[in-house]
Amino acid sequence: MFDTDAYPKSLQRLIGLLARLPGIGRRSAERLALALLDWSEEDLRHLGESLVRLRQEVQYCTVCGNFSDGDRCVICSHPQRQTEVICVVETAAQIPVFERSGGFHGLYHVLGGRIAPLQGIGPEALAIEGLRRRLAQGGIAELILATSPDVEGEATAAFLANEFADSGVRLTRLASGVPVGADLSYADAATLASALGGRRAMR
Amino acid sequence: MFDTDAYPKSLQRLIGLLARLPGIGRRSAERLALALLDWSEEDLRHLGESLVRLRQEVQYCTVCGNFSDGDRCVICSHPQRQTEVICVVETAAQIPVFERSGGFHGLYHVLGGRIAPLQGIGPEALAIEGLRRRLAQGGIAELILATSPDVEGEATAAFLANEFADSGVRLTRLASGVPVGADLSYADAATLASALGGRRAMR
Repeated sequence: MFDTDAYPKSLQRLIGLLARLPGIGRRSAERLALALLDWSEEDLRHLGESLVRLRQEVQYCTVCGNFSDGDRCVICSHPQRQTEVICVVETAAQIPVFERSGGFHGLYHVLGGRIAPLQGIGPEALAIEGLRRRLAQGGIAELILATSPDVEGEATAAFLANEFADSGVRLTRLASGVPVGADLSYADAATLASALGGRRAMR
Repeated sequence: MFDTDAYPKSLQRLIGLLARLPGIGRRSAERLALALLDWSEEDLRHLGESLVRLRQEVQYCTVCGNFSDGDRCVICSHPQRQTEVICVVETAAQIPVFERSGGFHGLYHVLGGRIAPLQGIGPEALAIEGLRRRLAQGGIAELILATSPDVEGEATAAFLANEFADSGVRLTRLASGVPVGADLSYADAATLASALGGRRAMR
């Protein structure tokens, strides 16, 4: 007879909103809402105002499209990045994943999505013109087409590879294969096929 | 070289605030903040304003201390609850746990904490006077002292049992024992001792 509907309206509303966050179920939302009730009014105001202003405050780098405090993001304005390699990613949220890998020291370019005809997303919706301008300015030796290794990501990479085929820059794709640390008994067939196809000599 | 400090200041601040929620680590806070960036400005304003107003909007039942929309909570104002049994709990957040069990149909009383001398919390900090007033009004047959089965919870229950020893109401404590569905190989010694002490005849 009693579930969240016995909570005051304001708590119910908050729980409902929190439950829309990814990975937050009804029970977690309830737990978070009750924890927030223990916060000071000042802390709640800080958090609340951060959310209200979030979209106005977060800017995007005018060069690469990464999240930024101003015109240029910390990566584009960093003096020690390799400026001749651009890693083309789907979203700005993927940049930290690459950065944490420690394996890339070049620049990025955020497409802002991938080609998905069924959702009405064509190449014109992506930041391809900006990428063309960056290539036209010269000094770029390689584009890593780092879209996801799924159907739409592959299609987007293929489109870009065709688009920039005559640009004179090296076009590469991330190696696809078995994840590091994975148990081969559970590898899926497509990944294993890709790992076999891309096998390397051990020395 | 790059972690959350490469995010814009506003995102860093939001991630820092979200990471203070229970069960939300740094990575989860980052994931939530990025998900919030995809929300519409309107939804962000709803959530933000809910948080800012949370403490003003959530009221507490003047009878039992449960969360409430007005003077009386849904339980105290429910026409079909058993009014002769009061379950005494530490916090209002524990009431939904009891309600979900489906095993209790009486009323509640929220202490607002438990006796913890090391943290300077004595009996005078708890809502004991209100409980005394409810008993004085008559019609109460049983108090279930449902504080947690740990040192401070037991001490609080013992204090209340002493306090209301002469009130003529039945004072009970929740059965303590092995959790339903638990594997006995992993039961801790104290729980098992308690379960043995409270063992019941099978018929």
